[in-house]
Amino acid sequence: MQRVPATFLPPIALDSRSKTPMYRQLYDWFRQAIIDGQMRPGQRVPSTRSLALELSISRIPVLGAYEQLHAEGYFEAFVGAGTCVAGSIPDDTQSPPAMKARKGLQEIVEKLGPRLLSRRGAALTHLPAQSWLDNLGAFRMSLPAFDHFPSGVWSKLVARHCRRPARGIMAYSDAMGYLPFREAIAEYLGTVRGVRCEVSQILVTTGSQQALQISAQVLLDAQDRVCVEEPGYPGARQAFMMAGAHLIPVAVDQEGMKVAELMHRGRDARAVYITPSHQYPTGMTMSATRRMLLLNWAARTGAWIIEDDYDSEYRFGSRPIASLQGLDTDARVIYVGTFSKVMFPALRLGYVVVPKDLVRAFSAARDAADVFSSTLYQAALTDFIREGHFARHIRRMRMLYMERRKALVKAIRTQMGDLLEVIGAEAGMHLVALLPSGTDDVAVSRRAAQRGISAMPLSVCYLKPPARGGLILGYGGTNPHQIHDGIRKLRMSVQQ
Amino acid sequence: MQRVPATFLPPIALDSRSKTPMYRQLYDWFRQAIIDGQMRPGQRVPSTRSLALELSISRIPVLGAYEQLHAEGYFEAFVGAGTCVAGSIPDDTQSPPAMKARKGLQEIVEKLGPRLLSRRGAALTHLPAQSWLDNLGAFRMSLPAFDHFPSGVWSKLVARHCRRPARGIMAYSDAMGYLPFREAIAEYLGTVRGVRCEVSQILVTTGSQQALQISAQVLLDAQDRVCVEEPGYPGARQAFMMAGAHLIPVAVDQEGMKVAELMHRGRDARAVYITPSHQYPTGMTMSATRRMLLLNWAARTGAWIIEDDYDSEYRFGSRPIASLQGLDTDARVIYVGTFSKVMFPALRLGYVVVPKDLVRAFSAARDAADVFSSTLYQAALTDFIREGHFARHIRRMRMLYMERRKALVKAIRTQMGDLLEVIGAEAGMHLVALLPSGTDDVAVSRRAAQRGISAMPLSVCYLKPPARGGLILGYGGTNPHQIHDGIRKLRMSVQQ
Repeated sequence: MQRVPATFLPPIALDSRSKTPMYRQLYDWFRQAIIDGQMRPGQRVPSTRSLALELSISRIPVLGAYEQLHAEGYFEAFVGAGTCVAGSIPDDTQSPPAMKARKGLQEIVEKLGPRLLSRRGAALTHLPAQSWLDNLGAFRMSLPAFDHFPSGVWSKLVARHCRRPARGIMAYSDAMGYLPFREAIAEYLGTVRGVRCEVSQILVTTGSQQALQISAQVLLDAQDRVCVEEPGYPGARQAFMMAGAHLIPVAVDQEGMKVAELMHRGRDARAVYITPSHQYPTGMTMSATRRMLLLNWAARTGAWIIEDDYDSEYRFGSRPIASLQGLDTDARVIYVGTFSKVMFPALRLGYVVVPKDLVRAFSAARDAADVFSSTLYQAALTDFIREGHFARHIRRMRMLYMERRKALVKAIRTQMGDLLEVIGAEAGMHLVALLPSGTDDVAVSRRAAQRGISAMPLSVCYLKPPARGGLILGYGGTNPHQIHDGIRKLRMSVQQ
Repeated sequence: MQRVPATFLPPIALDSRSKTPMYRQLYDWFRQAIIDGQMRPGQRVPSTRSLALELSISRIPVLGAYEQLHAEGYFEAFVGAGTCVAGSIPDDTQSPPAMKARKGLQEIVEKLGPRLLSRRGAALTHLPAQSWLDNLGAFRMSLPAFDHFPSGVWSKLVARHCRRPARGIMAYSDAMGYLPFREAIAEYLGTVRGVRCEVSQILVTTGSQQALQISAQVLLDAQDRVCVEEPGYPGARQAFMMAGAHLIPVAVDQEGMKVAELMHRGRDARAVYITPSHQYPTGMTMSATRRMLLLNWAARTGAWIIEDDYDSEYRFGSRPIASLQGLDTDARVIYVGTFSKVMFPALRLGYVVVPKDLVRAFSAARDAADVFSSTLYQAALTDFIREGHFARHIRRMRMLYMERRKALVKAIRTQMGDLLEVIGAEAGMHLVALLPSGTDDVAVSRRAAQRGISAMPLSVCYLKPPARGGLILGYGGTNPHQIHDGIRKLRMSVQQ
């Protein structure tokens, strides 16, 4: 148990109308607090002067109470260190009633069993444990190469803004985000991703998950139908489930989501969620034809398209794909992006590009969700982008991840050639490797976790049982040595 | 328009199977990008070596294309500064099509008019503008005294953690929060607020608003009835509305929420939202009798109590009030708190203490909402608490706010004695002053805003029309000089 900081005290309640004298009330209070274990041996107590000031009473009763507590051995005085609760507490202390109360609370909860939650809340408690997320071992999804991050530059930029705690950095800020940051994002997206937007359309979020959650809240009512890729991103499904929406899986092939199936099954869908640049998790790139068909379908049916462009910064071939948003002439696309992959996850910064007529609703939904994003990192990242560090970092990581991907594919071919089949485009920070038909990928993943390997089973990305299981292997944060060693352990996990 | 950082380039798409030679494709691409305005005069272009590397092609076509672009005046070379887009672009450039497209987009949106949102989303677009929040003038609610914040100590602690960007500070973290921070919160709440909990029950959030939103999502289904204080905190109502809940206002008097009315009107309520330590906004403290009645009612009906203890650190009398949560023997209370008031709002850190059997659902809901809170500030604040700065800061601010409150009450009495009636306990960072009957507080607030004064109208805290309007005046971030000057301007705004 760690020590309570010197100056914390449980609330002291004094009754000025009581017949018990003030010094006695104070004495009783301290004695009880020590007996109950609320104040601990060695804990410093306030000076008589400051306690009197805080309680708005004369110093005399405080002096009286302290003298008494000292005389009875509850308090000890130290030269230069003030007064403390005695290191050796008198014999008559009991086991703290707080502990008893805690036990009672636990018994009540156990006795009552599960209690009435919302349908959402109840569903959440039944989600399976994702043991592969519990370790940060080799192949952990979505982790960048922390050791190649320019920490020196970054911490200088953070310190620069932290040292000047202007009102603007500490006070409430716009629900849409820090304006210079939004300007930098709009420019970056326009140049690099072919996104067509104005600064007023950029909503800064705490990451792509919040962007999805807010989109779901603004666009979907309970029981509304939303089409998702099968297999697809579990985080998006969570966000839609929280809005009470009904999920319709639409199959994915080499060209991305099968738009013909979407048109058939999604006739009355209110929205479609899609990862066209680098399908999550299979890594496919949506073809130009399907993109046009999808946009036409949305314009015709009035459905919204939620485009999640989570890692398109990293493409290792020669054909970068511009965003779907940039092709949309009907303002039907809500474009979602994140800095978790290109910077680091604990930054908690992402964004959503919102059609102009939806800005008001998105802004209000963000306000209702959690008001606004912390300003410090927004300001630091603005400088990081403006001063060119961001583009340089992406360029360096693109080279690094390309090499890591090659190393991973090679390790799989040489060590597990007949056990894993790599699919998907050469892009991003992860790849999917299919297991032999009939292999239980969740079981493989569990066994791998016991060896310290974080391999996400492909089947968790499916709403229906998949035809074939597989593993999703991240390589962003896994260096060549870990890749080599990890594939060896993975082979054992598959063959076991 | 700010300059595009040197190394950003729009995606370059080359077709290796095309009959057009590679150098020509590259030349065409750059020429078009310059004509379209995607690349700007003076913008630096990559070296031929790095571009060839990035596109995975030989350097020869790149050299050919660059030579041609240079010869035609699209590129300029500078000694020591590489190659740039020419400062004076040839005459044949058009107005950027991107601009045309933007205009088109706007026309479409204007033509289409409002489009199909969720009921929630549509309701959000109809919320009235809160003009009093747009300025940070005197009496702005919820702002602490920034100039008295120990910025030096704080920025050192932030820098300490930022300089060591351990995996733990950069990677994904627990949805429940950073463990050492949760330990510090549990200890603080146990000691100072009489909250009874274990560390496992603490969920770190991005502030009290997110704590409310998650509570609403976990506990309430659409159309579920939830009782709220009348007047009450608008942020809580927003959070419940987003969950589709039906709000039932229950009146507040000198002893806080009228529990008898709650029992009558809230028979089938699933939850009650309450601010017992310092009622928002009226400042009343809930009496001990009502607390016991409320807890008994919840235990009997199975309703949840959401206790929002947003600013209880600041009480200026001699009787601090322990939390309702600490009295609850039935694990019915969800306890919400924030660091926005005691630290600063842009910190974006708050917490919710969750009954043990609800931890799983709350954790999953947080994961679905936005995964986890940024780690840097959590780590820095842990040190700030552990090293005693937090308790010291609270103690100093308590004195400061007590003085500011006195100054504000005095200024109101002397300058506006017959126009404003101050109500509520001596606590917190704001007070409510009632206006003469029949005065339109929203109109007063608007006029005050024109004078640079941020006075929130009391009526926005009501669901039904209030008997009497008033102003909510924050004094945390308003110094004595601003108080004096502000009240003068406020008097003019009332009398106008």
